[in-house]
Amino acid sequence: MSNWSEMDTYAKQWIKEAGKKVRESFQTELNIQTKSNRNDLVTNIDKETEQFFIEKIRAVYPNHKILGEEGFGDELESLDGIVWIIDPIDGTMNFVHQQRNFAISIGVYENGTGILGYIYDVVHDELYHGQKGKGAYMNDYALPKLEAVKVENAVIALNALWVTENRKIDPSILAPLVRDVRATRSYGSAALEMAFVASGRLDAYLTMRLAPWDIAGGKVLIEEVGGVVTDLKGNELNLLNKSSLLVGKPRLHNRILYDYLNKG
Amino acid sequence: MSNWSEMDTYAKQWIKEAGKKVRESFQTELNIQTKSNRNDLVTNIDKETEQFFIEKIRAVYPNHKILGEEGFGDELESLDGIVWIIDPIDGTMNFVHQQRNFAISIGVYENGTGILGYIYDVVHDELYHGQKGKGAYMNDYALPKLEAVKVENAVIALNALWVTENRKIDPSILAPLVRDVRATRSYGSAALEMAFVASGRLDAYLTMRLAPWDIAGGKVLIEEVGGVVTDLKGNELNLLNKSSLLVGKPRLHNRILYDYLNKG
Repeated sequence: MSNWSEMDTYAKQWIKEAGKKVRESFQTELNIQTKSNRNDLVTNIDKETEQFFIEKIRAVYPNHKILGEEGFGDELESLDGIVWIIDPIDGTMNFVHQQRNFAISIGVYENGTGILGYIYDVVHDELYHGQKGKGAYMNDYALPKLEAVKVENAVIALNALWVTENRKIDPSILAPLVRDVRATRSYGSAALEMAFVASGRLDAYLTMRLAPWDIAGGKVLIEEVGGVVTDLKGNELNLLNKSSLLVGKPRLHNRILYDYLNKG
Repeated sequence: MSNWSEMDTYAKQWIKEAGKKVRESFQTELNIQTKSNRNDLVTNIDKETEQFFIEKIRAVYPNHKILGEEGFGDELESLDGIVWIIDPIDGTMNFVHQQRNFAISIGVYENGTGILGYIYDVVHDELYHGQKGKGAYMNDYALPKLEAVKVENAVIALNALWVTENRKIDPSILAPLVRDVRATRSYGSAALEMAFVASGRLDAYLTMRLAPWDIAGGKVLIEEVGGVVTDLKGNELNLLNKSSLLVGKPRLHNRILYDYLNKG
């Protein structure tokens, strides 16, 4: 029998401690590498933060598995058992350019089901956290259930790239949505954008390609407040692979899915 | 002879006091009106905050003029004399939906020249402030001069709407820029987007139509750190009228202006 309450206590403690180190790192020079493409930066802080979590988890939970963005965790072929899915710095480009608008994101899954979710807006000391069946919070504030919203009243997050010529989606598919909604935003951190959906600050968020660690924490939070999390076809996410993502308030998610993304 | 140092001290004090009231307002119900169109909301907080500034300014500087978004100031036909240009809540939609990502923005102009500039990210207690010839700051941190950046390394803010069919600009004009830059963002508050340019967190920001109060504070800050502020044709802004806006690091501003917006 897993002690989720104990895991939750540890997770919060480690996240706060990691966040403190990250804030302190702003005083020192960052060492930046480019990963697979020019938009995918990685800093020494990303790597050190992931290693920090891995050490902590291994020390207390040697049987748990770890899936981490920077690759210091395990190579997983299934989500059997308890798996910590970690993005040490989601929004690394913002981290480098802005020292703002990035987050630590962690999801703890049991046999593929998300149980604990955390998204920590490090600079602003805002910890979004939740446990399946026990509610979601921003710091001590209980996040209310999400209420339905109409497309024309919705504020959604998506990147301008998806309505220009690009390799992932025909720009004419999303252009009508951009025109129909009340407003669009783009923050450049999937984790924060999911935290904003969970807390009702955004009504929906969609993007073309994310990795499990971008999504794992946010999925728990959004589902816990009654939001919907799927890929752009409406399928359940597979957290072992990259995927597109559509998250949103219940009816709005449906409308975006069937009136725009998968019309007719 | 104007005492700018005294004005600066008052302005900061009033802004902090107004910000405190705004933060307290989150506890109470907002009363929301729609202004000229559905995207232009106004709350009782916008109005109360503007009235607060006007009372304070009139008490100490009865000869100064005031141009405010909510219309409680003066009707101005020129910028002669000393004019306070005030947006009590820039990003009202964010204010209503997110209780984040909005700002108080104030510029103090003398015969049309910006002398003092303030943008206050109320929730995060981050005050961007500057005085012509005396530098710009974020709280106590002196903002460095902006350095040149190439288009392909730039992170710029613009709304996805401008690359879909819309009434203001042919979407094919900005689509190549969206593809060529490193990344785009959109925060939904012109004042904050200008503060981010002034502090190097964004390399450029552009939009189709803003009012003087959206721009007045940010213009002072950006120019003070060596950034460039024009409309989309490259013309100096006229702070009595609505205008398009392009702000950015020096060479990048030029490249966006001539390689994208006004090609050939």
